[in-house]
Amino acid sequence: MRHERLKIVIAPGPVHVPGQLRDAARPMHHRSGAFRSLVLDMEGMLRELFGTSSAVYALTASGTGAMEAAVVNAVRPDDRVLVVSGGKFGKRWSELLDAYGCGARVLSFEPGAAVDIGRVAVEAGEYGATVVACTHVESSTGLLLDLYALALALPGPLVMVDAVASLGAEELVMDAWGIDVVVSASQKAFASPPGVSFIALSDRARVRAPGHPAFYFDLARYEAGLDRGDTPFTPALETIQMVHASLLQAREAGWDAVRERHRTASAAFRAAMESLSLRSVPENPSAAVQVFVLPEGIDGDRFLRLLEEKHGIIAAGGQDGLKGRVFRAGFLGQFDGGTLLGIVHAVAATLSELGIDINVSDAERAMAPVAGLPALYRGHSAHEPPAAGGRARNVQS
Amino acid sequence: MRHERLKIVIAPGPVHVPGQLRDAARPMHHRSGAFRSLVLDMEGMLRELFGTSSAVYALTASGTGAMEAAVVNAVRPDDRVLVVSGGKFGKRWSELLDAYGCGARVLSFEPGAAVDIGRVAVEAGEYGATVVACTHVESSTGLLLDLYALALALPGPLVMVDAVASLGAEELVMDAWGIDVVVSASQKAFASPPGVSFIALSDRARVRAPGHPAFYFDLARYEAGLDRGDTPFTPALETIQMVHASLLQAREAGWDAVRERHRTASAAFRAAMESLSLRSVPENPSAAVQVFVLPEGIDGDRFLRLLEEKHGIIAAGGQDGLKGRVFRAGFLGQFDGGTLLGIVHAVAATLSELGIDINVSDAERAMAPVAGLPALYRGHSAHEPPAAGGRARNVQS
Repeated sequence: MRHERLKIVIAPGPVHVPGQLRDAARPMHHRSGAFRSLVLDMEGMLRELFGTSSAVYALTASGTGAMEAAVVNAVRPDDRVLVVSGGKFGKRWSELLDAYGCGARVLSFEPGAAVDIGRVAVEAGEYGATVVACTHVESSTGLLLDLYALALALPGPLVMVDAVASLGAEELVMDAWGIDVVVSASQKAFASPPGVSFIALSDRARVRAPGHPAFYFDLARYEAGLDRGDTPFTPALETIQMVHASLLQAREAGWDAVRERHRTASAAFRAAMESLSLRSVPENPSAAVQVFVLPEGIDGDRFLRLLEEKHGIIAAGGQDGLKGRVFRAGFLGQFDGGTLLGIVHAVAATLSELGIDINVSDAERAMAPVAGLPALYRGHSAHEPPAAGGRARNVQS
Repeated sequence: MRHERLKIVIAPGPVHVPGQLRDAARPMHHRSGAFRSLVLDMEGMLRELFGTSSAVYALTASGTGAMEAAVVNAVRPDDRVLVVSGGKFGKRWSELLDAYGCGARVLSFEPGAAVDIGRVAVEAGEYGATVVACTHVESSTGLLLDLYALALALPGPLVMVDAVASLGAEELVMDAWGIDVVVSASQKAFASPPGVSFIALSDRARVRAPGHPAFYFDLARYEAGLDRGDTPFTPALETIQMVHASLLQAREAGWDAVRERHRTASAAFRAAMESLSLRSVPENPSAAVQVFVLPEGIDGDRFLRLLEEKHGIIAAGGQDGLKGRVFRAGFLGQFDGGTLLGIVHAVAATLSELGIDINVSDAERAMAPVAGLPALYRGHSAHEPPAAGGRARNVQS
């Protein structure tokens, strides 16, 4: 195992978990003062990041679990829900609403096409929507929704947003923008393993109590121990500690500065990919997830296999209608400039190996703006020595 | 951080995660062939451990999530459910059933008192129970239920068992014993972090389809991708890899041999504690969880604090009615003999520091049967050098 080649994950989540965060998981009991104060500290930082004075609950579940908690705790069966969908994760809202017998109308946009806020407002008005569910960054296409404008155009209905793929990389100010439900998860901009998700509800969302049968996703159970840092069920101890460490690091760097890193790294990477003739899919690209159409005749699976096996870079393939035709990358702002350039070289080499004519010097030039960028977390760089010692792995030395 | 003293967790879950399992989590994408084949391999081993030819589904949730999946997928609102309860986790079944409007009668036994199988059978008959829910090892008292005898005495009703705290340490043969629903979780005998739970349903349980609203816990969604190793939602990538590595190691050691380790280590530990005048709580003690009454006048919180701060041993306190009066330990069979003796010394020293007169040589003698026991996993011993290198922590070396 010592000689196994280590790989870099650039998939848009689960992302690469850096050494600094892995090392943050210490032996600890979840019903201890130490863990409780860590949970309280984490919750405070989550409120800052969400831009809310409401509680942010941490669930031991994937992002879909937190989306289900949103429906269970805030959507009534007699609500008229408008789902704004531009792909796989927009559809998930409507599947969830269906499962709970909540009426939903789906307003679909073509994959990658910008969401027309005016049309959303008109449709919401005509339908008499009491709730609008949307996706901040659609992970299947990389599209960024102008959430501020959307919320502004919808003063009446509850606004419920899946911010799993956006929070930390894109701005979102829950209270000031008038957002009612925000859902996110650990394995994206938090750079932590998957398995923990987050949800915050505005006051008017929290009092709705729609009465769906629920237990694990009943937020009243989370509220009960919140001010003591007590979770209702055994939490994902290690991942919670990593999320805490990740938030500490991001807050120290500055929430704005972290978003700026993601923006700069993503823009440079898109420019580099475009210079390699890979077209970026979304009309309004995000700083979180990047999706690129592969050249005609290139099989997506083969491209990904080569990129991983020969170059050690794990990216993601297309979903739904884009399957086999695109590759996806995400949260590039977590890496240092040297690693980012290495990723560009790996993509270029893979294309070349597949017989595509490429000019790597334009791509290199496109990466110049991030040349000096240090990694956001220790142990997230290809050019840094291994973390010291293996002590944390053993019971004691 | 390098000089921070590392602690041993002996709490009955989340348990100490050994270096061997931490190292098993590699950078990987969850929609890859490598991960899919790992999931398939894990599922096969889980079937062996559960003793079933039915599918075993892995959920990204705590054990309570899998218990909710049991209710959602197998209990109808018109069922008559008898809950056999001897403490906190027995009560959880009835809370869950209540949340789904399923009628339940609770048959309570005193904390630590053996479950009277005859009484259960009579009560089930009188009530006309169609489902009996029980707890294999009640983590709040350490009590072992004679599950084989219970299932034998209940040929009619569906038998649903919470095996979170038992599976891997206590025998359970789902198909042969006629058990219909078995629930377990990653943070106990699997020696992995919390956040993944497991559930298997017998054929007659699976076809019940009670129609409760559900999405994340709807097992049909898990069934759909099962034979390809595809999870319906982003799985806890790292923890799944650790569970897989843990099962590989346990199967190599032998499922029986692992249970035997837990039995031997627990029996020796109980004898040692009794020689220190700590009374074991349960009438029928398990090989999984040990619960001991502290001497009169000793404050449980103070005992635990001292044990951790001075001796680096993290145990757990009492729950519900036993709060402040007991300490709990679990899954001792994962440690090597030297570490086990160190734990006994730490408990003895803590008692002595609290003014209790103890004779440590009897306790040492009680540990003789496990003196030569090697650790079950690498990096789970206090007497082994740190794992080599820190390579896995970095993107690449």
